[in-house]
Amino acid sequence: MKIILRSILQLMVIKTYIEKNRERFLEEWFDLLRIPSVSSKQEHKQDMLICAERWKTLLLSTGVTRAEVMPTKGNPVVYAERIISPDANTVLVYGHYDVMPPEPLELWKSNPFEPTIRDGRVYARGADDDKGQAMIQLKGFETALQTGLLHCNVKFILEGEEEIGSASLETFCEANKALLKADIILVSDTSMVGEDTPSLTTGLRGLSYWEIEVTGPNRDLHSGHFGGAIANPINVLCQMIADITDADGRITIPGFYDDVEELNAQEKEMLAQVPWDDEKYKAAIGVEALFGEKGYSTLERNSCRPSFDVCGIWGGYTGEGAKTILPSKVTAKVSCRLVPHQDAEKISALFMDYIQQVAPSYIKVKITHHHGGQAYVCPIDIPAYKAAEHGFTVSFGKRPLAVRRGGSIPIIPAFEKILGVKSLLMGFGLEKNAIHAPNESFGIDRFFTGIEAVAEFYRSYCNTSNVL
Amino acid sequence: MKIILRSILQLMVIKTYIEKNRERFLEEWFDLLRIPSVSSKQEHKQDMLICAERWKTLLLSTGVTRAEVMPTKGNPVVYAERIISPDANTVLVYGHYDVMPPEPLELWKSNPFEPTIRDGRVYARGADDDKGQAMIQLKGFETALQTGLLHCNVKFILEGEEEIGSASLETFCEANKALLKADIILVSDTSMVGEDTPSLTTGLRGLSYWEIEVTGPNRDLHSGHFGGAIANPINVLCQMIADITDADGRITIPGFYDDVEELNAQEKEMLAQVPWDDEKYKAAIGVEALFGEKGYSTLERNSCRPSFDVCGIWGGYTGEGAKTILPSKVTAKVSCRLVPHQDAEKISALFMDYIQQVAPSYIKVKITHHHGGQAYVCPIDIPAYKAAEHGFTVSFGKRPLAVRRGGSIPIIPAFEKILGVKSLLMGFGLEKNAIHAPNESFGIDRFFTGIEAVAEFYRSYCNTSNVL
Repeated sequence: MKIILRSILQLMVIKTYIEKNRERFLEEWFDLLRIPSVSSKQEHKQDMLICAERWKTLLLSTGVTRAEVMPTKGNPVVYAERIISPDANTVLVYGHYDVMPPEPLELWKSNPFEPTIRDGRVYARGADDDKGQAMIQLKGFETALQTGLLHCNVKFILEGEEEIGSASLETFCEANKALLKADIILVSDTSMVGEDTPSLTTGLRGLSYWEIEVTGPNRDLHSGHFGGAIANPINVLCQMIADITDADGRITIPGFYDDVEELNAQEKEMLAQVPWDDEKYKAAIGVEALFGEKGYSTLERNSCRPSFDVCGIWGGYTGEGAKTILPSKVTAKVSCRLVPHQDAEKISALFMDYIQQVAPSYIKVKITHHHGGQAYVCPIDIPAYKAAEHGFTVSFGKRPLAVRRGGSIPIIPAFEKILGVKSLLMGFGLEKNAIHAPNESFGIDRFFTGIEAVAEFYRSYCNTSNVL
Repeated sequence: MKIILRSILQLMVIKTYIEKNRERFLEEWFDLLRIPSVSSKQEHKQDMLICAERWKTLLLSTGVTRAEVMPTKGNPVVYAERIISPDANTVLVYGHYDVMPPEPLELWKSNPFEPTIRDGRVYARGADDDKGQAMIQLKGFETALQTGLLHCNVKFILEGEEEIGSASLETFCEANKALLKADIILVSDTSMVGEDTPSLTTGLRGLSYWEIEVTGPNRDLHSGHFGGAIANPINVLCQMIADITDADGRITIPGFYDDVEELNAQEKEMLAQVPWDDEKYKAAIGVEALFGEKGYSTLERNSCRPSFDVCGIWGGYTGEGAKTILPSKVTAKVSCRLVPHQDAEKISALFMDYIQQVAPSYIKVKITHHHGGQAYVCPIDIPAYKAAEHGFTVSFGKRPLAVRRGGSIPIIPAFEKILGVKSLLMGFGLEKNAIHAPNESFGIDRFFTGIEAVAEFYRSYCNTSNVL
């Protein structure tokens, strides 16, 4: 009884702190949104530094004991920490302070770098990705700390190159393993499955990406003089690509599915609770029918099953009208999305060997591996997951679903590889927030609900006796 | 005996006339080569008129009774005639006075518009295509006429737009059917199968050319979020293209081969005499192995059998590096070479129906017919063919082979359609003459041998009692 009462009291303390600081939280968020920290443009180089310094100031104001702007070969990393005790567990919060370019500007209803409120939503570039979500983490941490409910050490790392491939981050992690030592990494840079369906992302797909170049004759030939006598490299590449999948949408490369884990009953049950409507899905992307691996639902296929896609293809005559050539060369960019337990390197070797094996003698095939990334899976029985589940349940009023998602976030498996730490994907975004697009936005209520979820996470993490 | 003696005498008369006029023939040819009549360039508009006028003068000097430069919507057509008798058979000689651009100029060893003799060959743009070959026709006619050995009416038509698609010629033919009335058309604008293997081209392949556009989602999608859930239009198009041919290189579209005539024994025998070396062929185009319809030789495949080639393909991301998209759209330009008796329109309808039929419901397919042309076949039992065979046998010292070729010359089936007249393809070119390329050339000896062949044609055409 006493425990429950204390818990209710703490919960009220959190709500009160957030309520009291509401205006300041918004102001600090808006100030951040006003800095055009577009990492892909050289003209914003100075804004990157301004934004990093702004984060340092913000972090210091919450009560961290150390905050630094640390140089990299690219944009600096902002590091901060609040060490409670050397014996306590440590949380590492990751976010990014860079944003995508706002273009096309003419499609914005208000200045992308002047946050504007319409219908309870904040419109600005970065409102969600990732200034909004990173601010939720920061203010959740501040709330827990300032209300005396923090039971663990907290470290922050904010990079300025996420939107351009996180080029410096792996090197930074390699060089600062001791500094970044942690028990769990919190990342708020993803979305939930639905507005009224809180969720935590427990799996990400991996990726392998290749370029296949098929060469036939040493020059474009006259299709009248040569057509029929020799193999046409485009025809051949089409055949090779066609053979990679069968009529049931399965990838035919021997061994490809060996390490793919079937969804267990619990995961299937969670997935079944995700709000989903194939008809709406088809309408949104303008297709008459869906297609994919037989025996799996749409949601299973785009999140828990591997896929093979041609991302681009080009060869021969591509100008106006007709040119009757038998082309010399064709190139395709192809990729596979991989699922947890499929090793990206193993699959890449498998794929490249297969392509070379099936290449007929009458053409030359060159296959290059572009890049890849491991799939990622977060166990749902670890203390941090339980704490997050608690935090979301309290603030959103519903137990969050644990769902795998179809995309890849290369830095997540990289953290695991370099630092040996699992990441917890506490994304607060929604598809309608339109990240990377004009009129990016984030709901104000959701911003505060998120802060409460993070504060609740801290209240319960390493303090299980206190969980409501 | 008397006939044979007379024939030998006439043969000597022809040889003597050519020998006596050797220098003048060369000079007239060279003067023509000096006019840069490049039809594809606006800056040479005046040169086109100068060249047409030059042809008129040349024609008049040979003894035609009428010569005119006739306007069209594009470059003018030169028309000339020598009417022997309204009751006599009529030959219509077709040629073109325009040439391809000489670029790249830096690869020419001498000025492309200043004919230069090296090792018994004339180097200049148009030396072969078609000023050289058209001059052979003109001087062969002059020889026959001036030696009193012409037994038929002769008409000339020279166009100035062959290298840019003969845009005005069909209209000209439609408008001048009576003027162009003839029993046979002579065309010297093709090549022989080998230097020591005189040949007459008796068949040309037809063509059908389409553009296929396959659309999946209404925009490029993130391959992580959507890959596996919906069909990728590039994957689908590759499958459709792959299915058009089978492992034996045969086109699988039902009915495609219905009208294809198998080569008869005589044609097969002629084809077997064409000098051919698969090893040299492979080396010249840089392929390790040949591939095509099973059961046919290389030469049969590239001249007497239909073929299916993708001429170009493009879709999705084609820039540097990797972009993980599931593209919205892909387009391919595809074509079939057709053989005599396959109707281009029928095949086109068959193909377009097939593509729509096999298109799966989960993508949209748009197929457009670009252009096409009928295949062409010249019977070898008509008097004109016999006369040409005689002419070649006398001048080249060997009976010419009757061979089909793989390319298409759209104006040839158009002549047949509009004027109802067969064409006899008396080409004197050789592959080594490098038409359309830098250092185009034509052998001087071959030039005079050709003139003799044409004169001999006239001597024997409609005068069978005189044939040696």
